[in-house]
Amino acid sequence: MYQNCDAEDPAVELARTSTSAPSRNRFERRRAETRQAFVRAARQILAETGDTSASIQTIAERADLGFGSSYNHFESKTELFDAAVTDALEEFGKTFDEHLKGIDDSAQLVAAGFRLSARLVGSRPELMQVLRHRGLSHIHSDSGLAQRALRDLEVGVATGRFTITDPTVAVAALGGSLPALLELRFARPDVDGDEAASNLAEILLRMLGASWEDAHEVAQRPLPDLD
Amino acid sequence: MYQNCDAEDPAVELARTSTSAPSRNRFERRRAETRQAFVRAARQILAETGDTSASIQTIAERADLGFGSSYNHFESKTELFDAAVTDALEEFGKTFDEHLKGIDDSAQLVAAGFRLSARLVGSRPELMQVLRHRGLSHIHSDSGLAQRALRDLEVGVATGRFTITDPTVAVAALGGSLPALLELRFARPDVDGDEAASNLAEILLRMLGASWEDAHEVAQRPLPDLD
Repeated sequence: MYQNCDAEDPAVELARTSTSAPSRNRFERRRAETRQAFVRAARQILAETGDTSASIQTIAERADLGFGSSYNHFESKTELFDAAVTDALEEFGKTFDEHLKGIDDSAQLVAAGFRLSARLVGSRPELMQVLRHRGLSHIHSDSGLAQRALRDLEVGVATGRFTITDPTVAVAALGGSLPALLELRFARPDVDGDEAASNLAEILLRMLGASWEDAHEVAQRPLPDLD
Repeated sequence: MYQNCDAEDPAVELARTSTSAPSRNRFERRRAETRQAFVRAARQILAETGDTSASIQTIAERADLGFGSSYNHFESKTELFDAAVTDALEEFGKTFDEHLKGIDDSAQLVAAGFRLSARLVGSRPELMQVLRHRGLSHIHSDSGLAQRALRDLEVGVATGRFTITDPTVAVAALGGSLPALLELRFARPDVDGDEAASNLAEILLRMLGASWEDAHEVAQRPLPDLD
């Protein structure tokens, strides 16, 4: 009865919405924060160890959260680490969007992407360690990054910038070369990172069908500032 | 006294050698077999799980050996897994030598290497899973495989087959593309593996400086039989 009454009274309805929504929002927000704390801790551990051998207990301790609460968010350790990699890939994609916006030339986008990644090793080491260790296993998934690379390649083919017949293997070559570049940056700090990234971008543009002169010129263009 | 006597008697010396050497050999052989059983078990587990989270206990159980005996051979789990990856890389290198011997053309060697690898996914899945998951972390090390790739590239440059100025980044691109191809083979069984490998080889040869026609022709040459 009371309920029916309420339902017909817009003022009561409004009052109920305005009191319950914030508390639901607060609950949802806290829930999201807890989930994100687990993800952040898993990312850190992944970056430090390079593998997924840490226990949920260890991740929970790092997040300063109770062990049991992880099961409100993740069914297994695998799911938690997958969420950590997805989170890193999304952050990486956003960083690209932010820094490379305004670049229309597909060739320049590819080159700038590699060169930017090499620089991020210095400024965002945790993020790039995750990509170094786990990026490869996501290049043929439906992750944002693989789709983005495929889209850029298709635009390049449509505009005549690239000449490739099999975009899937081109994505494989690009998606394998990126963690290989990160591996080089982390494992061989003696190698000049900017130069290596430009040189790699240049030969990858050749691979995609750019002329040698063109590939060289595009790979040397000024890079947007990272700061 | 007795010892001095012996030392001056070649017949006694010979007799001693001929009795002690086999027992030392037997000891060494058993020791090597035990080590190899640990390595083999670690390889299997690495291939199955894709990571190094298994405990030494688990590896020992798989090898049907006592947990403690691992410490006669490996100081840590990391050392054991490293030995497993090195073992796989060596087997991979030997398989290359075996199947690609007689090929002098550097471009054909690169193409055949990629195409052979794609086929080995079917016939040697355990070996190729290890390379899929762990190959990347060894491409800038002094491992046999990286050195081999560098040597092939340098021969290609010397003979005018390849035009690259920075062999280190070319090794990165090749060494990253190989696990990416394996990832594609394992993660996307719907994709034609032979065709993907040939297409990838073709664009990688372009990257190394081969003309498009040349790259296409080389990537389609008959492949040595695997059996």
